[in-house]
Amino acid sequence: MMKQKEESLKQTIQTKEQIRERLAALRHHMAEHGVDVYLIGSGDFHASEYVGEHFKCREYISGFDGSAGTLLVTATEAGLWTDGRYFIQAAQQLKDTGIKLWRMGEPQVPALLDYLAGHMQPGQCLGYDGRTVSVAYETQIKRKLADLSINYQTQMDLVGELWQDRPALSAEPIWLLADNYSGRSRQAKLQDVRRAMEQNSVDMYLLTSLDDIAWLYNFRGNDIAYNPVALAYTLLTKSQAVLYIASEAVDQETADALLQDGIELRPYMQIYEDLEHLVTEERIWIDPRYVNVALASRIPQGAQIFCKPNPTEFAKAIKNDVEMENERQAHIQDGVAVTKLICWLKKQQETEAFRRGEITELVVADKMEEYRRQRPDYVEQSFAPIIATGAHGAIVHYEPTEETDIPVGMDTFVLMDTGGQYLQGTTDITRTVVMGNVSRQQKEHYTAVLCGNLRLGDAYFKSGYSGCHLDYLAREPLWRLGLDFNHGTGHGVGYLLNVHEGPQGIRRKEMGDRIGTELQEGMITSNEPGVYLEGQYGIRLENLVLCRRDQKTSMGQFMRFETLTMVPFDRDAILPECMEERDLHLLNAYHQEVYEKISPYLTGEEAKWLVWATAPLTKA
Amino acid sequence: MMKQKEESLKQTIQTKEQIRERLAALRHHMAEHGVDVYLIGSGDFHASEYVGEHFKCREYISGFDGSAGTLLVTATEAGLWTDGRYFIQAAQQLKDTGIKLWRMGEPQVPALLDYLAGHMQPGQCLGYDGRTVSVAYETQIKRKLADLSINYQTQMDLVGELWQDRPALSAEPIWLLADNYSGRSRQAKLQDVRRAMEQNSVDMYLLTSLDDIAWLYNFRGNDIAYNPVALAYTLLTKSQAVLYIASEAVDQETADALLQDGIELRPYMQIYEDLEHLVTEERIWIDPRYVNVALASRIPQGAQIFCKPNPTEFAKAIKNDVEMENERQAHIQDGVAVTKLICWLKKQQETEAFRRGEITELVVADKMEEYRRQRPDYVEQSFAPIIATGAHGAIVHYEPTEETDIPVGMDTFVLMDTGGQYLQGTTDITRTVVMGNVSRQQKEHYTAVLCGNLRLGDAYFKSGYSGCHLDYLAREPLWRLGLDFNHGTGHGVGYLLNVHEGPQGIRRKEMGDRIGTELQEGMITSNEPGVYLEGQYGIRLENLVLCRRDQKTSMGQFMRFETLTMVPFDRDAILPECMEERDLHLLNAYHQEVYEKISPYLTGEEAKWLVWATAPLTKA
Repeated sequence: MMKQKEESLKQTIQTKEQIRERLAALRHHMAEHGVDVYLIGSGDFHASEYVGEHFKCREYISGFDGSAGTLLVTATEAGLWTDGRYFIQAAQQLKDTGIKLWRMGEPQVPALLDYLAGHMQPGQCLGYDGRTVSVAYETQIKRKLADLSINYQTQMDLVGELWQDRPALSAEPIWLLADNYSGRSRQAKLQDVRRAMEQNSVDMYLLTSLDDIAWLYNFRGNDIAYNPVALAYTLLTKSQAVLYIASEAVDQETADALLQDGIELRPYMQIYEDLEHLVTEERIWIDPRYVNVALASRIPQGAQIFCKPNPTEFAKAIKNDVEMENERQAHIQDGVAVTKLICWLKKQQETEAFRRGEITELVVADKMEEYRRQRPDYVEQSFAPIIATGAHGAIVHYEPTEETDIPVGMDTFVLMDTGGQYLQGTTDITRTVVMGNVSRQQKEHYTAVLCGNLRLGDAYFKSGYSGCHLDYLAREPLWRLGLDFNHGTGHGVGYLLNVHEGPQGIRRKEMGDRIGTELQEGMITSNEPGVYLEGQYGIRLENLVLCRRDQKTSMGQFMRFETLTMVPFDRDAILPECMEERDLHLLNAYHQEVYEKISPYLTGEEAKWLVWATAPLTKA
Repeated sequence: MMKQKEESLKQTIQTKEQIRERLAALRHHMAEHGVDVYLIGSGDFHASEYVGEHFKCREYISGFDGSAGTLLVTATEAGLWTDGRYFIQAAQQLKDTGIKLWRMGEPQVPALLDYLAGHMQPGQCLGYDGRTVSVAYETQIKRKLADLSINYQTQMDLVGELWQDRPALSAEPIWLLADNYSGRSRQAKLQDVRRAMEQNSVDMYLLTSLDDIAWLYNFRGNDIAYNPVALAYTLLTKSQAVLYIASEAVDQETADALLQDGIELRPYMQIYEDLEHLVTEERIWIDPRYVNVALASRIPQGAQIFCKPNPTEFAKAIKNDVEMENERQAHIQDGVAVTKLICWLKKQQETEAFRRGEITELVVADKMEEYRRQRPDYVEQSFAPIIATGAHGAIVHYEPTEETDIPVGMDTFVLMDTGGQYLQGTTDITRTVVMGNVSRQQKEHYTAVLCGNLRLGDAYFKSGYSGCHLDYLAREPLWRLGLDFNHGTGHGVGYLLNVHEGPQGIRRKEMGDRIGTELQEGMITSNEPGVYLEGQYGIRLENLVLCRRDQKTSMGQFMRFETLTMVPFDRDAILPECMEERDLHLLNAYHQEVYEKISPYLTGEEAKWLVWATAPLTKA
């Protein structure tokens, strides 16, 4: 899953009139508080990529419900900055609201901070809710505006004060993950973190990223759609571990279990007070990318703030032996569900229901979920399913809704990017399936994407290399056809956690033109090349791959990927004559493995189909 | 040419006794001047990679004559830091001198600056010749020692004052390169630089890197072995261009021609005075990687120093159409010379002279030079030739000398890394040739290196990608065998200039974990994977490749390489069964092109050999 939209607000889409009224009320409010410019981002208090309903202030005030976008409001102007995924959607949603759309990355469009620096007057006041802005981002803001003697008002949630029917903060129950799923006890993990604290000579450690907290304490929650995390903070010392979480989210049994491991519970918001009681000269570790400025501002002046990435981020990314083995099992079960779905979908072509247009994208999405629910230990979807027929497949972040849903078409592709949360791990798979017949060009493009996927999956590299060094493998077959795709090739994936997680990735570069995190044994990354022809079709083929150690020689430790995803590619779209011998060998070996692992779970009819679907291909 | 040693000093190798005496004299001198620690690097006044004889102070005082190494001397200790290329040589040369060898990059070995920070006492004095230390390096030093209130003594050349028979500063005659070789007049280049000055709002530009100066003014010199540059500085304003160079280096005709293009000549060292006359508030552009601190210190306090890489570096790297076409011709002529040499060498195996051991590495090197001298427009070698038989091939920077020279062996490889300077460009080629028969393993290794070379040469990529993204291609065939090579895969190459030039390269990463400069049309880079088994043999196969634009589509501009080097690989070492079909196709296509371009210049007998050497290979 390369991109994702959060679920839209349950309430009816605001009318443009409503938006204009809300903006007017905000401006009135700003004037009352002496705020000249107010900034509203997409974040919750934890800099999460996706957020709960309570936090959707930017959506409330602008009507734009994409997952990424920042709004600036002044007394006379309003502008929203968002990225290429959302240009079309934002243009529609912002139309007639008085909010100007700034298309990030386009020539002539200033970066938001450059715009601020160019438009704010010396001595003016910039406001934002400090709880929703990270220390790292505030540093960027203040550096950019350093010459302007700006006043900052960061204590007020001006939109929240206007928002009448604002959903409450979520406080869904958490549940504990047994060690046979997590592979490492929370005590052992705490020990690891405390060792890192000692190495960095800190007295205290403030952890605020939700997936890291869930990972550290081996619990899971339900406060953000698809991301099984809970709203929480944690503060560690050498001897204490305090988990700040809504009391209603933790039942007695769970609380007892945590307490037994030395984890004390306190109310979610109490962290703000507790931070004020730090003793002067104490040294506290924070990760400025995640800790919000309201929290940081509570740390007393005399304390030393030590900024470094969360040690949990790396530890979480490197799956342990139990997690690796569980992930293999989860991917077999998920492979069974997706294989059944593809088999079912292929058969639909011959049905009356299909001809009548009853098999729509949402019907397929529901069927997919139905097959997954039949698998053991299935928890929920890992993101909103993308089922995109024909031209919908070219809209990279397309997700069918009641408004956009259409019947699956014939003689085109259906792109299906879905995933599941299992007790044994998180899956994320894209298959693009031929309905009817597709053109020679469509097959050439499919085959090129397939070759990219196969070659990246077969990468063989020396320890110390990063995803950026492998990005070429997935793209080269497309480049030779003059094609490319405008998204990363791979992202890290959590274990029964967020489907996007750091720090590794497979893309041209990381921030600051850096090569990025080296790939290490236990890291799970997506492998998802694609091609998108606007108004025509989209193709994406995504497997998850697990990084493994291979031979070690006097010249180094060598690494390879183990492909976890077990679902056949579509032979109806493959042109063996456009593949190298090596590509065919890789494809046939993969298909054989898929058959062996998946067929035992299929009905006779499905298994028969899988024999056909995975039969070896050769050059004519 | 991946690595290179400079020519050894002409004088006899110093005895260890001499070195100890010189160190004692230096310490006496340091004490007189209140210097506690004296630092002696490898640089000339221009931060050149290779330097003239006058500048070899570190060699004079330590006896270590590698191209890279920094010496620290205190009242009681002395230590030399050098890299892996020179561990063995430095250990020998420093033995019994009282100088400790610090092997850079080895665990437990502190970086030089960390050592300084750990060993200097507050208030002590650190000395170095400011003319030989770049502004960038001094910044690092001062940052590292910031807490120690160090005094800096940078005005004295303490070693130079001791050095009795020091070679004079070189002042070899320069000569002008006509526009049909340079492809762009010095006036046009000056205009480009002045445009960059305007864009960066500077009044003055100080350029001190020698190859950039030679490139800018279309002259060539002879002050550094193999690098056709001249010791010079230049200072530009919007209307003035002053070239600081020894008057004896410029004859009247040349001076007149330069003057006609508005380039004024002044004595080499006058730059130091002239810089002092900058007017307050003027803004001067320097590249801190190259400008030495003695120069920078002459810039008056009131002036603004603007630090940015030399604009000439990029412009020089991007060969223009004339240069590209000339390079093709130079590489055909060089290919003729190297092909003749290989043909000659293969035939030597059957001679009495060979059996008697008369065909030594130096004999081959001389023969190579003889063949090159026969080519039109040949100027000189572009670096000291590496001819390495058997185990010598595994010493990555091996270069035969009278002391090390041995007969070319049978049933092993000869690794030959050589290059030429032509009016049409600079070449750099490595071929590894089988003498007699080699083992199956040797052939497997040769074939893997060959596949890496062929695949990198066939890279196809989107504009915006860097060499680091392609490094994988050259290494993967080796990695699969558990092999690797411990040097970069590719370096930029000048046009009748330095065989190593920036800014692009093909390696895992650039400084600071960055992806490095994107590859652009006109850049020439080496493609030189290898494998080295200590005590056994070395294999390296090096071509130069020219980056070219290919198709441009709605999805981007795509790029490919054109291989310039035209010399066959050795079919005696190739195992077609270890190659992919695509590799064989690439090899056969390359060999066909080599035959077509080279055979017209060969004798009948040589051409017959080339027919055999380039005949298509297929899987059995």
